[in-house]
Amino acid sequence: MSLETVSANRSHGGTQGVYRHPSAETGTEMTFSVFVPDHAPGARLPVLWYLSGLTCTHANVMEKGEFRAACAQHGVIFIAPDTSPRGDDVPDHDGYDFGKGAGFYVDATREPWAQHFRMRAYIETELPALVAQHFPVDMARQGITGHSMGGHGALTTALRNPDRFRSVSAFSPIVSPLHCPWGEKALGGYLGDDRGSWREYDACALIEDGARVPDLLVDQGTADGFLEEQLRTPLLAAACKKAGQPATIRMQEGYDHSYYFISTFMAEHVGWHAQRLNA
Amino acid sequence: MSLETVSANRSHGGTQGVYRHPSAETGTEMTFSVFVPDHAPGARLPVLWYLSGLTCTHANVMEKGEFRAACAQHGVIFIAPDTSPRGDDVPDHDGYDFGKGAGFYVDATREPWAQHFRMRAYIETELPALVAQHFPVDMARQGITGHSMGGHGALTTALRNPDRFRSVSAFSPIVSPLHCPWGEKALGGYLGDDRGSWREYDACALIEDGARVPDLLVDQGTADGFLEEQLRTPLLAAACKKAGQPATIRMQEGYDHSYYFISTFMAEHVGWHAQRLNA
Repeated sequence: MSLETVSANRSHGGTQGVYRHPSAETGTEMTFSVFVPDHAPGARLPVLWYLSGLTCTHANVMEKGEFRAACAQHGVIFIAPDTSPRGDDVPDHDGYDFGKGAGFYVDATREPWAQHFRMRAYIETELPALVAQHFPVDMARQGITGHSMGGHGALTTALRNPDRFRSVSAFSPIVSPLHCPWGEKALGGYLGDDRGSWREYDACALIEDGARVPDLLVDQGTADGFLEEQLRTPLLAAACKKAGQPATIRMQEGYDHSYYFISTFMAEHVGWHAQRLNA
Repeated sequence: MSLETVSANRSHGGTQGVYRHPSAETGTEMTFSVFVPDHAPGARLPVLWYLSGLTCTHANVMEKGEFRAACAQHGVIFIAPDTSPRGDDVPDHDGYDFGKGAGFYVDATREPWAQHFRMRAYIETELPALVAQHFPVDMARQGITGHSMGGHGALTTALRNPDRFRSVSAFSPIVSPLHCPWGEKALGGYLGDDRGSWREYDACALIEDGARVPDLLVDQGTADGFLEEQLRTPLLAAACKKAGQPATIRMQEGYDHSYYFISTFMAEHVGWHAQRLNA
């Protein structure tokens, strides 16, 4: 599988790169970013995936996430994919919360979305294979995190793939698309009205239905304007408690939904993953 | 003097704010950003000024600079002004290296620039007075740093005001506007053809003419495409050596001119300033 280097910058004792490739799943070119810390020749490093939120591309966390110092310290490769297919051929929607920039990490089954909006297959299958081919990664040591829509993506992807991921965390995740306007709009649009088919894309429903991870870490700001209606952190706490799913869910006083919040706790998340990936 | 809060976000155990005010010096509204770490009631904290490079506003370092963790750790307030006056009434130039976004921290004497392009007076006099009035700053403990054009601004402002600043550093500074195309265009445009009048805006010339600071720290990437023609770090090293000006000038292998470079060494610079400001 071919890969084009868009840019490469030395940073924090490693290389921050941006790469582009034709995706068979989405039928478009896809762009993603990878930070590779300096390492011994031949070494293979653990990987932390970061799934971004609504309206974002690979670039937001790359510029504002403040992950590189911690990744260099712990020897962790950091990969940030895009949030949807892009391009003139890809259908879109006039809202920020559906269509381009809002793939919700699902494989759409409804038209006109089904052809290109295959972000689940892209994240679960195609991109890992490409990364394994081109980067010094140890695919036996993967963790996943994300923000908001990407926190939903991280939690659901990990819960569906417990053998692939050793660690999972999230920043202000949408914890139950079945129970919030963003989720109802997106899953209804991409998957249709059969809410049973949404359950594999809902962290709370997956846990209710028996999915488990060893543990999970969530940070959520108390001043986040989306907390009450869209993110609904208490639903995740309740689902974990009821199911006996170990979880550390921290309400962070005064923090909002922005990268000013994410960057504050990023180093802790990287360290939390590194502890599990380097164990 | 009045001050309007544009935004305030909790981050890294402090508050990242953006503020706007009418400036008497520039005759425009000016915007700047301030990070204030949490502190004891009534405490006054040391200040680190950061002057930005060509094309930047207050926002670039605020989003990409990775200074907040270190400032919170050391209890340092971080202030980032804009790089020029803005607005429809302000004359501009079609290049990125002169006019808006390129004030070079000088008081222009030539028309049509003299009315609004008074960034030296703004940084040296007006903004410090405003900051002293509205923020919990200890103005007896100030340091200054900056990047590229802002590195030039930091070095020259400190060399002209040794009583005001206890510490000075720079990332990839323009070290001698007298000896590079950016500098010749800017100082010629703002000040006219009398190159003698440029010397107070040239770090190397100031040192040759007797200005001194206790010491200075400079980081410069070896892969910086502007190094040879525009930044000319060796001229500063030679001027310091000849004059006996203590200086730590570090060439950083493989780093370029971007915020990927700045953010890598930002925490070290903050720590270097904090050591002098908290002494």
